[in-house]
Amino acid sequence: MAFASASNGAVRFTEEQEALVLKSWAIMKDDSANIGHRFFLKIFEVAPSARHLFSFLRNSDVPLEKNPNLKKHAMAVFVMTCEAAAQLRKTGRVTVRDTTIKRLGSTHFKNGVSDTHFEVARFALLETIKDGIPASMWSPEMKNAWGEAYEHLVAAIKEGMKPVALL
Amino acid sequence: MAFASASNGAVRFTEEQEALVLKSWAIMKDDSANIGHRFFLKIFEVAPSARHLFSFLRNSDVPLEKNPNLKKHAMAVFVMTCEAAAQLRKTGRVTVRDTTIKRLGSTHFKNGVSDTHFEVARFALLETIKDGIPASMWSPEMKNAWGEAYEHLVAAIKEGMKPVALL
Repeated sequence: MAFASASNGAVRFTEEQEALVLKSWAIMKDDSANIGHRFFLKIFEVAPSARHLFSFLRNSDVPLEKNPNLKKHAMAVFVMTCEAAAQLRKTGRVTVRDTTIKRLGSTHFKNGVSDTHFEVARFALLETIKDGIPASMWSPEMKNAWGEAYEHLVAAIKEGMKPVALL
Repeated sequence: MAFASASNGAVRFTEEQEALVLKSWAIMKDDSANIGHRFFLKIFEVAPSARHLFSFLRNSDVPLEKNPNLKKHAMAVFVMTCEAAAQLRKTGRVTVRDTTIKRLGSTHFKNGVSDTHFEVARFALLETIKDGIPASMWSPEMKNAWGEAYEHLVAAIKEGMKPVALL
């Protein structure tokens, strides 16, 4: 599903931002399972209670670090986030697979995900990317490019979280 | 006001934990203004929307880094947090100046501070202390001691956030 920015115009994402995202994603891609896992462990380090938002963690005694469902979920979310960022400029839209953005919106709404949770995930994502690429590649511009791409994804998910107006 | 742990028993805080807190607080104390400021800037780095919880930030155009009210507030909160931690074992209670814990509870309740906000502040506090003491002094035990002291303070504030039952 394609999703335009809140203004309903095309997403603004410069060539330079796209180049930074593509360059760093190319480096991280092959290690998505581990980097995605670290992304989620960072979220839970900052906000331990966020684990209650995930059904497969609520009813599990397995430590977070060893939970296979978390590893699988974390990789899927990380890859989706990075691919949406990588395609942002080309498509001018947040692009994820069909129906996924609707499901994401509804799941996040149902589970009571708050603005602060989205912010914690943003912080965790940027910290994880910083540690996932060579130190010489990290810069304020790189941080900004990923931060903006993430904000576009969140705007799309939040749009999907809005209850449908009843006629 | 003195506040016991949730179990209404004395707070458990070991001699070792107290020693770690006292040792690191002694080093940070003289630089409380700067370290406290960094503590709050870290909170806003992780959760930018948390600035709306503070009346003196909501209506200000001054950048966070330069806001004198934030500097003042941050230092007061940091010193209170560290002093409560330093006195925890000796008193067996979270001890802050008279009426402060009630005011804290009521202010946090009124402004809609959530569990996630308290978690973000915990993460920011631990990161700030890590950077505020010599690297050789930081350890899992040090992190644990400050983390536990902070949890006791938060439990006291949350107790003060509960609406008074009506008879």
